[in-house]
Amino acid sequence: MSNTTRTEHDLLGDRDVPNDVYWGIHTLRAIENYQITGRHISSYPELVKALALVKRAATVANCQLGHLDPQRADAITAACRDIEDGKLHDQFVVDVIQGGAGTSTNMNANEVIANLALEKLGKAKGDYAALHPLNHVNMSQSTNDVYPTTLKLAIVFAIQDLLSAMAALHDAFSAKATEFSSVLKMGRTQLQDAVPMTLGQEFMTYAIMVQEDMARLEEAIALIQEVNLGATAIGTGINTDIRYAKLATELLSEFSGVRLVPAHNLIEATQDTGSFVQLSGVLKRVACKLSKVCNDLRLLSSGPQAGFNEINLPERAAGSSIMPGKVNPIIPEVVNQIAYEVIGNDMTITMASEAGQLQLNAFEPIIAHSLFKSIEHLAAGCRTLTDNCVVGITANVEMLAERVRCSAGLATALNPHIGYEHSTWAAREALRSGRSVAELVLEKGLMTQAELDDALRPEVLTAPRSH
Amino acid sequence: MSNTTRTEHDLLGDRDVPNDVYWGIHTLRAIENYQITGRHISSYPELVKALALVKRAATVANCQLGHLDPQRADAITAACRDIEDGKLHDQFVVDVIQGGAGTSTNMNANEVIANLALEKLGKAKGDYAALHPLNHVNMSQSTNDVYPTTLKLAIVFAIQDLLSAMAALHDAFSAKATEFSSVLKMGRTQLQDAVPMTLGQEFMTYAIMVQEDMARLEEAIALIQEVNLGATAIGTGINTDIRYAKLATELLSEFSGVRLVPAHNLIEATQDTGSFVQLSGVLKRVACKLSKVCNDLRLLSSGPQAGFNEINLPERAAGSSIMPGKVNPIIPEVVNQIAYEVIGNDMTITMASEAGQLQLNAFEPIIAHSLFKSIEHLAAGCRTLTDNCVVGITANVEMLAERVRCSAGLATALNPHIGYEHSTWAAREALRSGRSVAELVLEKGLMTQAELDDALRPEVLTAPRSH
Amino acid sequence: MSNTTRTEHDLLGDRDVPNDVYWGIHTLRAIENYQITGRHISSYPELVKALALVKRAATVANCQLGHLDPQRADAITAACRDIEDGKLHDQFVVDVIQGGAGTSTNMNANEVIANLALEKLGKAKGDYAALHPLNHVNMSQSTNDVYPTTLKLAIVFAIQDLLSAMAALHDAFSAKATEFSSVLKMGRTQLQDAVPMTLGQEFMTYAIMVQEDMARLEEAIALIQEVNLGATAIGTGINTDIRYAKLATELLSEFSGVRLVPAHNLIEATQDTGSFVQLSGVLKRVACKLSKVCNDLRLLSSGPQAGFNEINLPERAAGSSIMPGKVNPIIPEVVNQIAYEVIGNDMTITMASEAGQLQLNAFEPIIAHSLFKSIEHLAAGCRTLTDNCVVGITANVEMLAERVRCSAGLATALNPHIGYEHSTWAAREALRSGRSVAELVLEKGLMTQAELDDALRPEVLTAPRSH
Amino acid sequence: MSNTTRTEHDLLGDRDVPNDVYWGIHTLRAIENYQITGRHISSYPELVKALALVKRAATVANCQLGHLDPQRADAITAACRDIEDGKLHDQFVVDVIQGGAGTSTNMNANEVIANLALEKLGKAKGDYAALHPLNHVNMSQSTNDVYPTTLKLAIVFAIQDLLSAMAALHDAFSAKATEFSSVLKMGRTQLQDAVPMTLGQEFMTYAIMVQEDMARLEEAIALIQEVNLGATAIGTGINTDIRYAKLATELLSEFSGVRLVPAHNLIEATQDTGSFVQLSGVLKRVACKLSKVCNDLRLLSSGPQAGFNEINLPERAAGSSIMPGKVNPIIPEVVNQIAYEVIGNDMTITMASEAGQLQLNAFEPIIAHSLFKSIEHLAAGCRTLTDNCVVGITANVEMLAERVRCSAGLATALNPHIGYEHSTWAAREALRSGRSVAELVLEKGLMTQAELDDALRPEVLTAPRSH
Repeated sequence: MSNTTRTEHDLLGDRDVPNDVYWGIHTLRAIENYQITGRHISSYPELVKALALVKRAATVANCQLGHLDPQRADAITAACRDIEDGKLHDQFVVDVIQGGAGTSTNMNANEVIANLALEKLGKAKGDYAALHPLNHVNMSQSTNDVYPTTLKLAIVFAIQDLLSAMAALHDAFSAKATEFSSVLKMGRTQLQDAVPMTLGQEFMTYAIMVQEDMARLEEAIALIQEVNLGATAIGTGINTDIRYAKLATELLSEFSGVRLVPAHNLIEATQDTGSFVQLSGVLKRVACKLSKVCNDLRLLSSGPQAGFNEINLPERAAGSSIMPGKVNPIIPEVVNQIAYEVIGNDMTITMASEAGQLQLNAFEPIIAHSLFKSIEHLAAGCRTLTDNCVVGITANVEMLAERVRCSAGLATALNPHIGYEHSTWAAREALRSGRSVAELVLEKGLMTQAELDDALRPEVLTAPRSH
Repeated sequence: MSNTTRTEHDLLGDRDVPNDVYWGIHTLRAIENYQITGRHISSYPELVKALALVKRAATVANCQLGHLDPQRADAITAACRDIEDGKLHDQFVVDVIQGGAGTSTNMNANEVIANLALEKLGKAKGDYAALHPLNHVNMSQSTNDVYPTTLKLAIVFAIQDLLSAMAALHDAFSAKATEFSSVLKMGRTQLQDAVPMTLGQEFMTYAIMVQEDMARLEEAIALIQEVNLGATAIGTGINTDIRYAKLATELLSEFSGVRLVPAHNLIEATQDTGSFVQLSGVLKRVACKLSKVCNDLRLLSSGPQAGFNEINLPERAAGSSIMPGKVNPIIPEVVNQIAYEVIGNDMTITMASEAGQLQLNAFEPIIAHSLFKSIEHLAAGCRTLTDNCVVGITANVEMLAERVRCSAGLATALNPHIGYEHSTWAAREALRSGRSVAELVLEKGLMTQAELDDALRPEVLTAPRSH
Repeated sequence: MSNTTRTEHDLLGDRDVPNDVYWGIHTLRAIENYQITGRHISSYPELVKALALVKRAATVANCQLGHLDPQRADAITAACRDIEDGKLHDQFVVDVIQGGAGTSTNMNANEVIANLALEKLGKAKGDYAALHPLNHVNMSQSTNDVYPTTLKLAIVFAIQDLLSAMAALHDAFSAKATEFSSVLKMGRTQLQDAVPMTLGQEFMTYAIMVQEDMARLEEAIALIQEVNLGATAIGTGINTDIRYAKLATELLSEFSGVRLVPAHNLIEATQDTGSFVQLSGVLKRVACKLSKVCNDLRLLSSGPQAGFNEINLPERAAGSSIMPGKVNPIIPEVVNQIAYEVIGNDMTITMASEAGQLQLNAFEPIIAHSLFKSIEHLAAGCRTLTDNCVVGITANVEMLAERVRCSAGLATALNPHIGYEHSTWAAREALRSGRSVAELVLEKGLMTQAELDDALRPEVLTAPRSH
Repeated sequence: MSNTTRTEHDLLGDRDVPNDVYWGIHTLRAIENYQITGRHISSYPELVKALALVKRAATVANCQLGHLDPQRADAITAACRDIEDGKLHDQFVVDVIQGGAGTSTNMNANEVIANLALEKLGKAKGDYAALHPLNHVNMSQSTNDVYPTTLKLAIVFAIQDLLSAMAALHDAFSAKATEFSSVLKMGRTQLQDAVPMTLGQEFMTYAIMVQEDMARLEEAIALIQEVNLGATAIGTGINTDIRYAKLATELLSEFSGVRLVPAHNLIEATQDTGSFVQLSGVLKRVACKLSKVCNDLRLLSSGPQAGFNEINLPERAAGSSIMPGKVNPIIPEVVNQIAYEVIGNDMTITMASEAGQLQLNAFEPIIAHSLFKSIEHLAAGCRTLTDNCVVGITANVEMLAERVRCSAGLATALNPHIGYEHSTWAAREALRSGRSVAELVLEKGLMTQAELDDALRPEVLTAPRSH
């Protein structure tokens, strides 16, 4: 920062602001009040972009409705576009954890946009008589409608990215399902040997899980596309033109490319954070599933000698500083940890939501911070899981086939042929003696070799009986 | 219990079972293994009913497909109907917290139904050669498809009851909104005086919150109407007729009156508990909202002298054993606590879901227990909140009006008329001096009395400006 | 209940109460207000006993200080003793989830004790002029000191039981550690084969975990032995004798056999629920550890053919209704689920604690309910884990030894002898070829047979090198 | 980075590393594998410092025991000291969320220290034949003992900072308690007027809460001062000198100034994360209390006209972009949000701890990340709460006194003089009529003015009765 400063004024008095920054006195207060994480809101670029889009939509609406002159409107619009394009992100310096229900974030935007617009008008930064952060940039707006609307738009952007990462993960699992479609193996319930299946069926399960979660996320997005722009302070729309809410929301949809609709009741929408809780609940669902899948991958690749040893994960790093040759399932492990973080974030969001009082929830900043972390880290987790793990998984086909051949679990498939009692005997005897169920059944004359061959065909073992 | 016993047999050997009980040796083992809560699965009547419905659907399907003879099928069907009608619920004695992925619950049902069916056939309890709990009652089934299908059906029943309790709560809030539609009051953000609204607007918010949550619950129900009946052990449908899954599910829909559909992929559906997590997430949302509303009710009725004192909750009990005349907001308080419990239950469900391994989640019993508690307690909470609180709320109309008249917050409404600077002066001066904003503005000649009267009309204060 | 009734009176008017019950009008109101769970506070016998102990201590203190006449004091004391002995528990009928900060629980106790004392005085139930639930039984007391003091005492009772269950579990693990002290096996990190250890070392770990958790619980108990008896309404001790708090607490220690001390600041102690949060945090720690141990037991016993198959859990039930011969790890599974419940309860307690306002936390009833569940279910879980699982565990000694012999992980032990580079080669080559590390090293002439024999002795593999 | 590179080698092959960085090939793999948060471990300076201290202690121990030559030991020691002094923190570039149980963090340290030591020896970076990251820097160590030991030491450092922030907060509350010691006000339970107290008593409560939490934190620190240094891979101490564990731990205590002790059983200590769970539980307790206090501050300062309006928080920023003159309780709000984050972090830590398997918990990195956030944000929250809020709080003394004078709650204090029945009448009539309890009691002749004056003295109202 340079040594020159400008003086700005607010409710509490005068303060000097460095002349080379675009933010002003309200942002300065926020910097001083919130020294919490060291991370700025600029670390969520979608948020900054969405802020600029909302300000632009409001400005164009105000101008079209005749409340704001075209010259100022054009300057503000141009400033917003610059920010949408990624310029001046470094000017968004409020801590991601902040009090004031997002007021400082809104003020930060108002100030940066005003000063940038002033420059576009050939004026000096801080010449607020010419163009004012509140009177002009914030016209018809309150933090209480701008901030939640911005969050929702930013979250839509972030989730689009997550969905694309999930789609790639789905495709990777699906490709493996095809690759492994004829690899027979033992299925397990409660970690105990159950009945045969194919490794392809197992991997197809993971593909479908991801796909279903994508569908659930898309449904949850729909809920956050209802915004309260035009609600102003508490949802009554005080100090707005009655045509403003609808027009500004339409313009925001147009500018952002995201279909947004005005909430049915703006008072309710201004205080309600239920859609954030529900979205986080769905992200928690995604996290649970991803974690379960990663637990499975770690289990199936355990060993290699004293474990399941069914599949091999790609080697990504030396596993140990002391044990030569050891390689660990580090990619699933990092995804597990992201899942735990997302589940913790959900608790934070739940508490923040429950704590809202009367006409506003003052704790939306921590909801936003937690949601962004959840969404971005899940996307990163899906990406590393896809690229650094799933695509390179191989199967130990011979061992898997051998295990099925010897499994006492085959007795289940003989149930319809030899009855529950004989099946139980065959299963227990196979375990006791180490001999195969087929061998025992054959020896005892319960079935012929041909009958056994038929009953133990892979396609019979892994699907319902057709008639 | 009588002194006579019958001897039953399982994998582990022989055991004597009291002759007057309908359950058998597998249930006996479960009683001994799970002495955890002292509560039996019979404490969830929807679960027992759903179990019987599933068993009946499977039986009729097996009969129609020619795998089960009509005589046995009829006896089993009749036994199921008795249980659906609420008979023999006391025979469902397994602890609500149990290991074995629900196997004991399934076994309990198989045994009770078999013995009841045997009696209907004129046979003695325990005469399993005539009709067998596993071979006949459990035909084409595994715990791993029967149990989750049963849970889903039972949850649908329970949620229907919750929805009806929520509808009544919605109606009560809605009626109050109408009653209070012309009661002007100060709205608040961040617990600080903001701008005026009506008490009717405030209560309408609560009505809408409940209504929206009902819509979200209905969406979540749709997710649990996908069942895996016919999946058997791990979803491959081993040992079932290929026509069975579809037929049994159709029959279950018909018998239960609940539209159920077979999951697209039965292997995935058998191990996936995502829909339970999501449903619990929605219940958590409901809990958050209800808790927020109850926090508001307690706040608005605080005092009566040293608090907000805006509304009066019905008196339901003497509030104190030491303070004469004190009355407390006990009904909202009990609902807050139910909300905290539901949020805790969600964490339990999340952990249980994440812990599922490979082809099955062994922890569905605690998911079921937690979901039933959440749903039933929320319904009970809505009922007591409606009947013992909301319907009897009254407003302190005069005091509310007086507060608006004196409020420095009216300055916001004068912004468009006298500008932000004069408004700020008026607000600060009003607070300092204790005089009204209108009086100050009039005295200073900023507006005429007529202009003020117009600008401060309730309909102007509580809605956008029309043009 | 009989048909005869008596009429009682409170702030809200008159109500008829069945004549054969000992509770009165305040309890009746509570029954009507709180129809939530169907469970009564009588389901926590420690709570009822602790209530009676607190009432007795207060009564004797009041009498000794000259505020209560000996005749009434004796009658109340006798009534309390009856309840401590387990009589009349069925009269404690308020729902475990209740509003009013425990007032209904306190009122229930006051009424039952008063009516029982009246009978002992030869008077009719309801003759409160002779002996009054509030004026006499509740003298010098408020719910706000009686209820938390009672909870703390009851929790101490409950935890003593949990500690005894944990001690038995510790002993069982410790005995197994001794039994398995010479069973060599491969240790694992990140589910991958690491270096050798003994199965005894592995089980000793579990014993120590339990033992350490017992120590942590004992520390946490110390925190809840600080009580606020004598605080009355908000901690200022209004309407008490200045000598009362100390005397009543001393008497309560004497009567209960539990060392209790008055909190340093009664105002703080009346509103602070931090010790409950911390105790729950320790219970959560216990739950995490137990769950981890159970996860391990399930993993180590997985298979038997396509899993780790290192140990065998006792067979406790047939595992499947469809798969003959299958046996599952049902006892660890039920303990896992208890752990998830305890973790959920901790969240409930956290929210209830955070929600306390000003001079009181109104949400102690759900804190109590959640704590009792956590403690009792953990004790039940430890008991079934000890008796039905740990004591009967056996090891597959031969297989474990063979796995160590063949393990590529032995290469780590050769590091100090042949260097990291040769060790890495040996480990990788062993895995590739299926030959043993020792064989490869011998063949390549890196070590002699004698050197290898020495380096691979079990006592060298499983401990630091002595010099 | 410059364009020149050096080639390094690991298990997976060769890779080029920029020549101007001190980290090497293992760190490069980690960078590629973990692109999750964009935050590096360098953002926790205590962690980097603790890493260097642990490496130094291990190195000196190895040298003293004769396993490492003095020349290399000196170079490593000097390198560690540089890092302890804050140099090269920018070289610790692994993502804070990482797989591999901390292996990458350990490898990053080994590589940076090795290359820095090489420079000190006049060698080129990467000349590992001269001084090797694993053979020399990591001698006698495994990630599995170095990483948890480092975390514990780093956490002690971080908590010392938190304790100092809490001490300042305690002092601020305590000073306010003294300042307000004679300010009489109404206490409240369940948000309803209860009985009088002083504002000093209320603020002393907050001071004591903070003080007690400090004591609890100090107890929790003691638990994490037990470390497993010398455990190596799984706790058996394989490949260490039997004297190493004790010596290295003593040296680490000496170098760090933090008293550390070797865990009793290193195998248990290597897999057990219970002390982290417990510490997080105590941090959650701290968060709950801080949040409760902030809720109270927001409530007590609510209004200013339509709220409690008892105290005034310092004005820290303009509160609204639309409502002129509005000022909000933004500092308590930010602390509330930190509390919600800490509670969420506790859930993450709980899940990560529960998920540990067999001889190691692979999820310690997310435990570390979550703990550091909790501790640092709580410290930041305490600081802003102290400096920007508590020290500047003022009381509305007159209004508070007036409220007490008029309060119906005074009736409680007259109980011992006029009995429960008359007190109830007085309280109810005071509320109904708006007249004072004293006036009514005087008028009815129940007490004389002198008796009333005595009974309603502040010292009588706010403390037990002396005799």
